[in-house]
Amino acid sequence: MEEMTIKDIAKLCGVGISTVSRAINNHPDINPETKAMIMNTIEENGYIPNNSARNLKRTEAKSIAVLVKGMSNLFFSTMIKVMEEEIKKKKYTLVLHHVDFNEDEIDVALQLVKEKRLAGIIFLGGYFQHQEKLEKLQVPYILSTVSGPPENLNRTEYSSISVDDEAESFKMVNRLIELGHKKIAILSAVSEDESIGKLRLMGYKRALQAHQISVNERLIMPMRADMEQYSMQNGYAVTQALLESNEEFTALFAISDMLAIGACKAITDSGKRIPEDYSVAGFDGIQLGQYYNPSLTTIKQPIEEMAKATVKILYKVLSDHAEHKHQVFAAELIERDSTQKIK
Amino acid sequence: MEEMTIKDIAKLCGVGISTVSRAINNHPDINPETKAMIMNTIEENGYIPNNSARNLKRTEAKSIAVLVKGMSNLFFSTMIKVMEEEIKKKKYTLVLHHVDFNEDEIDVALQLVKEKRLAGIIFLGGYFQHQEKLEKLQVPYILSTVSGPPENLNRTEYSSISVDDEAESFKMVNRLIELGHKKIAILSAVSEDESIGKLRLMGYKRALQAHQISVNERLIMPMRADMEQYSMQNGYAVTQALLESNEEFTALFAISDMLAIGACKAITDSGKRIPEDYSVAGFDGIQLGQYYNPSLTTIKQPIEEMAKATVKILYKVLSDHAEHKHQVFAAELIERDSTQKIK
Repeated sequence: MEEMTIKDIAKLCGVGISTVSRAINNHPDINPETKAMIMNTIEENGYIPNNSARNLKRTEAKSIAVLVKGMSNLFFSTMIKVMEEEIKKKKYTLVLHHVDFNEDEIDVALQLVKEKRLAGIIFLGGYFQHQEKLEKLQVPYILSTVSGPPENLNRTEYSSISVDDEAESFKMVNRLIELGHKKIAILSAVSEDESIGKLRLMGYKRALQAHQISVNERLIMPMRADMEQYSMQNGYAVTQALLESNEEFTALFAISDMLAIGACKAITDSGKRIPEDYSVAGFDGIQLGQYYNPSLTTIKQPIEEMAKATVKILYKVLSDHAEHKHQVFAAELIERDSTQKIK
Repeated sequence: MEEMTIKDIAKLCGVGISTVSRAINNHPDINPETKAMIMNTIEENGYIPNNSARNLKRTEAKSIAVLVKGMSNLFFSTMIKVMEEEIKKKKYTLVLHHVDFNEDEIDVALQLVKEKRLAGIIFLGGYFQHQEKLEKLQVPYILSTVSGPPENLNRTEYSSISVDDEAESFKMVNRLIELGHKKIAILSAVSEDESIGKLRLMGYKRALQAHQISVNERLIMPMRADMEQYSMQNGYAVTQALLESNEEFTALFAISDMLAIGACKAITDSGKRIPEDYSVAGFDGIQLGQYYNPSLTTIKQPIEEMAKATVKILYKVLSDHAEHKHQVFAAELIERDSTQKIK
């Protein structure tokens, strides 16, 4: 690409160099339409102002950090990919930071804000135990598929996007009951989990209750705390233990597709068939569910749309000082080969 | 975490504040042992020097960009996760940048270097068509599982890590031939690909030739250019076309596990069984291969070690001005349920 200069931009726009400079530097003394036209021309021509002071400013302010819990989850890697594309379009840079399950993401965020000059933060996944610290965060942030912000946290001070985890989980378990299943195991989050995992468990319980099926605590199988959360490995281990417990069940609902895939493998490794012996359903709608054998019944979250909305909402807060926004997406129940009517 | 000050660090170390300051600012006038002790104390206590000039310097220089081609590939998402952890340990920040398959990663890198002040760059995946431009890159870089740097590129000016793609591919195809397969299809890269895909195809051809099996061009199935490269979807579409072509084959070697999984699904969807009707083998060794039905025979790259080595080598170049290094890892052939002896 041929190097463009500020002169070229001025010529293209039919204005003087000082006008281009005012546009670039957000100078108040410029007609908004002229400014928009100049900025468009700059964008279209890929011109990068190489004034070093400006570069410095850009370096300081043009990063959005994505703090993610549990990145080997395919749900998140798809989200991150889409977010990165959107952030790039907005001329920001994505700083990726992985938070361990035993780390507190708010501490990590406070630390990052100190070290780097971030424009904004996206919290992806996880849940908040120490919400009072959120008030210390001095950059705009959005909770993306994070649950647990307490009711006393002022909703005008942060944004969020999610699905209605409780209702979607209810929908899936309700469908399994419609198929004739009464003994439905759930592969759930660790018991101290206050996040999405808790909401999905609540939906499970409510669906059983709606059909006068009593909750059998021995069919509530929390993930193992000593393995990566929401991993195939964890789903495998927990399902293996369930099968060995000889507790009867005909369907298993895993609160994520990755767990469900581990569960499927544990079932087939034990010599049983899906769906003939056990129906298995997941949650998330990752692409893999379509390619797995058997293909996976699931609650499909609109992953791309959610990732795009996350960046869009945060960007509006950053660039236009828009108000914070809370968006709840509808998910879709997709029935594939891993579930069937009980015989 | 309680806020630490430079005073606290000085007290803990039993030195004066100015000594701590010299340590932090890399001042030459300090005993190296004292400096190491102070830096250790700083690290252990999570102290962040909050002198703003220093923050600025850190912001400018402490980022490592990872430029990745094809991020929905699970191989890369695992690499990125491990790299992020290692980069974090070194007190750098990972800037993630996804490069489209039709974009030139060197252009993207040159642009990023202009916009951001990067300390170093990791190129992850892909291949280089315009290598002459690499010489314009003014920050240290490492090619991680990238192939194609031309022989005239001075190897003392960049680092690289990889496996021996040609030899590992030979190993797998050789094994399929040992199992009695003679009609072996390969799901390969698009024909203009000069990267890893080309090397893996070369290994396939050499293995056939070593056993006096002539290469049947109709069994060389390149990925579709109009779909995401190395995706399950692409593997599915190409295998479906192969099955419909009625060209006979008994085994299929896909040059990546994600492609192999798509291939497996296309085969089972067509009513055929794996491995009874077709043996399927992949390449990469992603964890999913273990949990797929059937579990996938593959060439397992030491993904974690490779990611760690990538960061370690680059870090040494950045911090100790170490010489550039080229490391080739051994991979392992793992036989699982998707392949069997021909009957």
